[in-house]
Amino acid sequence: MHVLVTGAAGMIGRKLAERLGREDVLGGAAITVLTLTDVVEPPVPAGFSGSIRRITADLAAPGVAASLISARPDVVFHVAGVVSAEAETDFDKGYRSNLDGTRALLDAIRAVDGGYAPRFVFTSSCAVFGAPFPETIGDDFHLTPLTSYGTQKAMCELLLADYSRRGFLDGVALRLPAVCVRPGPPNKAASGFFSAIIREPLAGREAILPVGDDVLHTHASPRATVGFLIHAAGLSRDTLGPRIALTMPGVCCTVGEQIEALRRVAGDAAVSLIRRAPDPLVERIVAGWPHRFDPARARALGFVAESSFDEIVRIHIEDDLGGTIPA
Amino acid sequence: MHVLVTGAAGMIGRKLAERLGREDVLGGAAITVLTLTDVVEPPVPAGFSGSIRRITADLAAPGVAASLISARPDVVFHVAGVVSAEAETDFDKGYRSNLDGTRALLDAIRAVDGGYAPRFVFTSSCAVFGAPFPETIGDDFHLTPLTSYGTQKAMCELLLADYSRRGFLDGVALRLPAVCVRPGPPNKAASGFFSAIIREPLAGREAILPVGDDVLHTHASPRATVGFLIHAAGLSRDTLGPRIALTMPGVCCTVGEQIEALRRVAGDAAVSLIRRAPDPLVERIVAGWPHRFDPARARALGFVAESSFDEIVRIHIEDDLGGTIPA
Repeated sequence: MHVLVTGAAGMIGRKLAERLGREDVLGGAAITVLTLTDVVEPPVPAGFSGSIRRITADLAAPGVAASLISARPDVVFHVAGVVSAEAETDFDKGYRSNLDGTRALLDAIRAVDGGYAPRFVFTSSCAVFGAPFPETIGDDFHLTPLTSYGTQKAMCELLLADYSRRGFLDGVALRLPAVCVRPGPPNKAASGFFSAIIREPLAGREAILPVGDDVLHTHASPRATVGFLIHAAGLSRDTLGPRIALTMPGVCCTVGEQIEALRRVAGDAAVSLIRRAPDPLVERIVAGWPHRFDPARARALGFVAESSFDEIVRIHIEDDLGGTIPA
Repeated sequence: MHVLVTGAAGMIGRKLAERLGREDVLGGAAITVLTLTDVVEPPVPAGFSGSIRRITADLAAPGVAASLISARPDVVFHVAGVVSAEAETDFDKGYRSNLDGTRALLDAIRAVDGGYAPRFVFTSSCAVFGAPFPETIGDDFHLTPLTSYGTQKAMCELLLADYSRRGFLDGVALRLPAVCVRPGPPNKAASGFFSAIIREPLAGREAILPVGDDVLHTHASPRATVGFLIHAAGLSRDTLGPRIALTMPGVCCTVGEQIEALRRVAGDAAVSLIRRAPDPLVERIVAGWPHRFDPARARALGFVAESSFDEIVRIHIEDDLGGTIPA
């Protein structure tokens, strides 16, 4: 089996490639070829016994998608894309990467002759939803994005559904909740604090909390997120039906509950590193985001997230801190 | 005021241009320039006192959109597009015309410097909704198209909302119900019989009815549809908010009720020209279409359709048959 991962140098793409490399199988079939692509060179996952191809290229550039697809990967994990904040500040780059890049990949697949129709797993986002919201967002809430990023993801979901209906490929789009705890240096995303208030104290550093403790949000760990992608690759077309976009499950909790989970796992000393500095701009942005979902379809289809925020904190320690909290 | 109409050679575009030409005003302002464009030459509307430009060109071809927009129309009625059946049979043409053509127009507007942000009225369609449906489709039902045409319309709604949110233009998308009675020769669209069973008997010709009398559908006359477009041009941005796509009202009735309306207006002789010839393929296609809507937002914003199918029949006689039924 040949598996292609786009965005393989990004946080989720890298963790996905690591897991695929480590497990060597996908849906019971041995992975013989792993193609990793991104705009910067993706790292080589450890321990993979098959062959690895790494391709540094821009999907939206002429010929790139066709070249990637000419090797006829059986499964495509399309994780590549410009993140929310960048898609908002750089209009052209966002549409080029998130919409045109995806469309180029879909059209390259469509152009292959002879019954080629790979499984195509697309990382969408809960940013396809925009306020005002009901108390809980069900599977049939309408697409009302309030960012260019959310618009691009929603457009790609629709495109993927049509290409699937036509039989060009076998698509599934996963609307990911906030990925938490995000490893690495703090970024400028308005959502960055959800991860920073856990990650920074665990590394012995101060974290700024710009919103109130009562802010509610839904989270899934990077490990659960990679699990969603792998589970999606094994879904049968018939199970999914024509509505190929699924809202993923997650842990819905307040910032205050996040902090208490950190206290249970890492103690008062860690919690004391969180400094409250309310920022009205961040508060306003966050108020426009969806809080709580009822991902009934995804649960029925076997997608599983963490069951508590404590678990999310422990997964960060296991997967990103080598299993121990630095002294 | 300069008004641009795309798709001005099509049925709705032509009737819109006729009304704009006849009334000479839009939202209280005099129309000084009317630009009409289509892939075939649009007819000249009668009685217009301003200047008319007719441009025969393909919106998706390089430079065409920029050239149209360089004259800075104050209002754009974007009616152009490939119809549902053609978008389904010719995949490339549908995406090129309905998605790329629209995007070219939006990007041409965005490229104009100096605070240019025209009112942009886009003809979307109830084909953005796909089965299964609730009994009545409300304003917050999700986008679930089951045709390439519906997919393209839904993608353009999303694009238009994002371009409006960004301030590049001031967009509104109208999800039109079935336009009935459609004048002219019968076409091959699966929905063609809804109009044919009225139009053909009124012209003394036989009409085939391929579905049962209990099939429910929502209709608006061409006159009401043109009225929706003109009303939309006058809506204020603040009234509309970020959800710029509106489901239009219409007359919801069964095929049997359509036939009884024909009988009341034109008598038993007309009705006797309807020949029942059930077609399982058409029955199956029609069963997948939405039947009934609750267009609460559009009604609150002042959009008005006919109040009975009798009125729809009479409007066809007035507007397309010169006011009398041929003997």
